[in-house]
Amino acid sequence: MEFSSKLLENAVYEMSQLPGIGKRTALRLVLHLLRQPKAQTDHLVTALGTLRSTIKFCKKCHSISDEDICDICSNLNRSQDTICVVEDIRDVMAIESTGQYRGLYHVLGGKISPLDGVGPQDLNISSLIEKVNEGQVKELIFALSATMEGDTTNFYIYKQIEGLKVKISTIARGISVNDELEYADEVTLGRSIVNRIPFENALKSP
Amino acid sequence: MEFSSKLLENAVYEMSQLPGIGKRTALRLVLHLLRQPKAQTDHLVTALGTLRSTIKFCKKCHSISDEDICDICSNLNRSQDTICVVEDIRDVMAIESTGQYRGLYHVLGGKISPLDGVGPQDLNISSLIEKVNEGQVKELIFALSATMEGDTTNFYIYKQIEGLKVKISTIARGISVNDELEYADEVTLGRSIVNRIPFENALKSP
Ligand SMILES: [Zn+2]
Ligand SMILES: [Zn+2]
Repeated sequence: MEFSSKLLENAVYEMSQLPGIGKRTALRLVLHLLRQPKAQTDHLVTALGTLRSTIKFCKKCHSISDEDICDICSNLNRSQDTICVVEDIRDVMAIESTGQYRGLYHVLGGKISPLDGVGPQDLNISSLIEKVNEGQVKELIFALSATMEGDTTNFYIYKQIEGLKVKISTIARGISVNDELEYADEVTLGRSIVNRIPFENALKSP
Repeated sequence: MEFSSKLLENAVYEMSQLPGIGKRTALRLVLHLLRQPKAQTDHLVTALGTLRSTIKFCKKCHSISDEDICDICSNLNRSQDTICVVEDIRDVMAIESTGQYRGLYHVLGGKISPLDGVGPQDLNISSLIEKVNEGQVKELIFALSATMEGDTTNFYIYKQIEGLKVKISTIARGISVNDELEYADEVTLGRSIVNRIPFENALKSP
């Protein structure tokens, strides 16, 4: 791509550093901003700059928060002794949107992935072990993705707290409520048979 | 979507104002920036802000340029009497990348589109008419997209300069060089038959 302006080329280059945004898309987005009132670019630039420079993480669960302790952690109506372990804030948002969970969260900030150079020390794992060691956690629910990295991370945490008095569970994997059996992938279908639940329990499910 | 942080929510909102970027994608992009070193956000924010606030358009062709007159317009090796009329800078870049054109450009900044509230006065049309009126333009090449808006714009400009001594042409539409006839759309195929060229001319084509 030959640009007639270094400033344009630079803006397109920086935009194309975002994941999934190629050079062509980046150019389209930048030209869009140039056609809109200057205020739109100002708002975008200010919002990103302010977030990145003043970003805070909740001191308890490591979720993104504007306060030292986030709204969920400071809500005393929630079970303080149940902690759901997730990869990032999107998982918190997804689980919150179901309205089915009333405990707390712990955001790891990723999964153990030797190939990507992500070890336990790069994640918020030690603070989770500490919490459990303090003895006030009754249940830990693993809600990481069902990949090798997710399983590795679950197992690593499990080994660190093995023997402590805490119930450890993982979210149920199975066929989506609206899915036809024939379209489900084999692994999921297999797990859903192995982890079958009493029919009465299913009757009680929402 | 429920956000745990107003700053995050605001950044995601501004990002999702870009065309083709939904709330989910915006969140993914913003979280990516938060995981990267702060310098990446700084560079993006500076590049967009600087471009938007110091943006210049070439005084001759209205293309984006860092100088008053762009590199193409100031290149005296190019035919100064041939002007290719395009919608935006992406068309200039596309035609330049073919290496087949050695004249100048005129960037309209859009197409006449009554439905979108875009009239001739919103585009760089009067300066084009002036150029032609000055009598130094030998050929005008319309290279707008073959839509109703493109045709309307071509026709509007044509009526304004009708009778003046200037050759007016439009770029050839036809089957792409590598396309199979059976997969071509009917309109394109029809035009390619109506606008057939002498076989010897095709032999000379690159
Ligand atoms: Zn929290
Ligand atoms: Zn120019």
